[in-house]
Amino acid sequence: MEFDLIDAIRTRVNIARDDVALSVGDDAALTRVAPGQQLVACVDTLVADVHFPRDTAPEDLGWKSLAVNLSDLAAMGAVPAWALLALTLPDADARFVERFAKGFAELARAHDVALIGGDTTQGPLSVTVTALGTVPTGEALTRAGARAGDAVFVTGTLGDAAGALRLLRDPGKGAAHAEILFAHLNRPRPRIAVGLALRGIANACIDVSDGLLADLGHVCVASGVGAELEGEVLPLSSALTAVFDAATCRELALAGGDDYELCFTVPADRTSDVAPALAQAGCDATRIGRVVAGSGVRVLDAHGNELATPQAGWEHFSQ
Amino acid sequence: MEFDLIDAIRTRVNIARDDVALSVGDDAALTRVAPGQQLVACVDTLVADVHFPRDTAPEDLGWKSLAVNLSDLAAMGAVPAWALLALTLPDADARFVERFAKGFAELARAHDVALIGGDTTQGPLSVTVTALGTVPTGEALTRAGARAGDAVFVTGTLGDAAGALRLLRDPGKGAAHAEILFAHLNRPRPRIAVGLALRGIANACIDVSDGLLADLGHVCVASGVGAELEGEVLPLSSALTAVFDAATCRELALAGGDDYELCFTVPADRTSDVAPALAQAGCDATRIGRVVAGSGVRVLDAHGNELATPQAGWEHFSQ
Repeated sequence: MEFDLIDAIRTRVNIARDDVALSVGDDAALTRVAPGQQLVACVDTLVADVHFPRDTAPEDLGWKSLAVNLSDLAAMGAVPAWALLALTLPDADARFVERFAKGFAELARAHDVALIGGDTTQGPLSVTVTALGTVPTGEALTRAGARAGDAVFVTGTLGDAAGALRLLRDPGKGAAHAEILFAHLNRPRPRIAVGLALRGIANACIDVSDGLLADLGHVCVASGVGAELEGEVLPLSSALTAVFDAATCRELALAGGDDYELCFTVPADRTSDVAPALAQAGCDATRIGRVVAGSGVRVLDAHGNELATPQAGWEHFSQ
Repeated sequence: MEFDLIDAIRTRVNIARDDVALSVGDDAALTRVAPGQQLVACVDTLVADVHFPRDTAPEDLGWKSLAVNLSDLAAMGAVPAWALLALTLPDADARFVERFAKGFAELARAHDVALIGGDTTQGPLSVTVTALGTVPTGEALTRAGARAGDAVFVTGTLGDAAGALRLLRDPGKGAAHAEILFAHLNRPRPRIAVGLALRGIANACIDVSDGLLADLGHVCVASGVGAELEGEVLPLSSALTAVFDAATCRELALAGGDDYELCFTVPADRTSDVAPALAQAGCDATRIGRVVAGSGVRVLDAHGNELATPQAGWEHFSQ
């Protein structure tokens, strides 16, 4: 079982990399990390009805299970290389696996990620992906480098995935814009090129998976600083603003999960380097605030007054 | 949640390795693979009520979830280095996590394995561990090197874990020996030292997780050969033979899962090297058969007649 299903997916993914000496089909895989590179490793699990609705299309689940991990590699400034897939299914549903593999493969091919191992087990539906990549030694972006005075940026737009989840609870609403919002929820695009472009520019970086406030909060704790956000410049998609009022949009942008954008801090004298670097990566970023001495994340209005913030972060066990 | 629980476990594991540049607490971990080494990577999931009884002690589950992966690294002749842990729990049970961490840490410390990352999620109980190790380039043991004429060996004893599962269904039976059999089921000892000792001696190697017939069958397929086993020399523990009759013992040894011993093949002219190498690794191995031209695994009696074999292998989805 283990061998067959994972090998079927590997065949579908069909990425040949000359740094893979032995792939799916033995007790473990063998790969080569080039000299001067560090190995970058992360793992994330998606559980049915906790991290995704059970009726999510298998193609979307395949894509997303890899995307959330590649997003973590992106936040480190790493180049993805290999993945291992642990897929737990209620039954041996070949059609599900085929469709799952299609979505997984689509994203894997986009980033030249080889599926080198895995395990298929019977049980309640969940997916755990381990993503492995490399970064030149000493050049990784981390959460710990933010300094008071840095500017805070975020890529893309915020709150779209959380907006899609709201639409699920209120199906009549926003039909004209649902497709765009659900694309953010189901097919997040890991910002690999952005992470690479930010090496040597950003002081700190994190991917926004649990909501901007929570994730920027992690950066603040790791760096021993605070942050102030300008609540009225948060980047919002026209789809989101068309469906929700301004207060809801801000709440979704600050506290909604599943954005998979990158939030990063840049020294004040390097902020002019951001736009050209991001343009090369084919992505926009918005300057949304600044790093300050102290601790915690505050959100300010245009007059510098503190706004009430929604409950920070999206914690699995507090749902 | 993710950060806190995994960091609590990492703190408990408390292995400091100078090849870990960044551990739990960022988007990903950073490690160094030494020049001349290949990275070895594998992943295995244990699902409650499929791979372990739900009332398994959390300490045992922590140990076993790492052990089954280190066993895969052992089969490659690899040295374990790092692990990532994806733990899915029905609720945030601090006592469960503490006890799980204790068992995980006990084995991690025995093999100097650093926990470098993870994810804790809410959902039906399951554990996925990714184990990473290294092996000198080109020296890994694989499933594909067996040649006709090789002798087939297996470490330790077979069938004990499967025997323990039988006792679960028949609680009155074998009480005097239950402890030994359950130790095999719950606390398998990955044969890391054996894998290292077999580099340069074994032509092929696999860990026996799905039952000897199934796993030796994988070696045969990968190597394009067949195998003949001597059914009457299979290594059995005195605990197993005290509880079960001879036919049942053989069935458990051939088709029972969860042994986590190593099965390996050695060229005929190197068989005398096995005992000294294994003695250094503090482990016994038994010569149980030979590799032959052709395909498939046959079991022979003392007169060379083929014995009927139990249904091969332990397939999750066929349970």
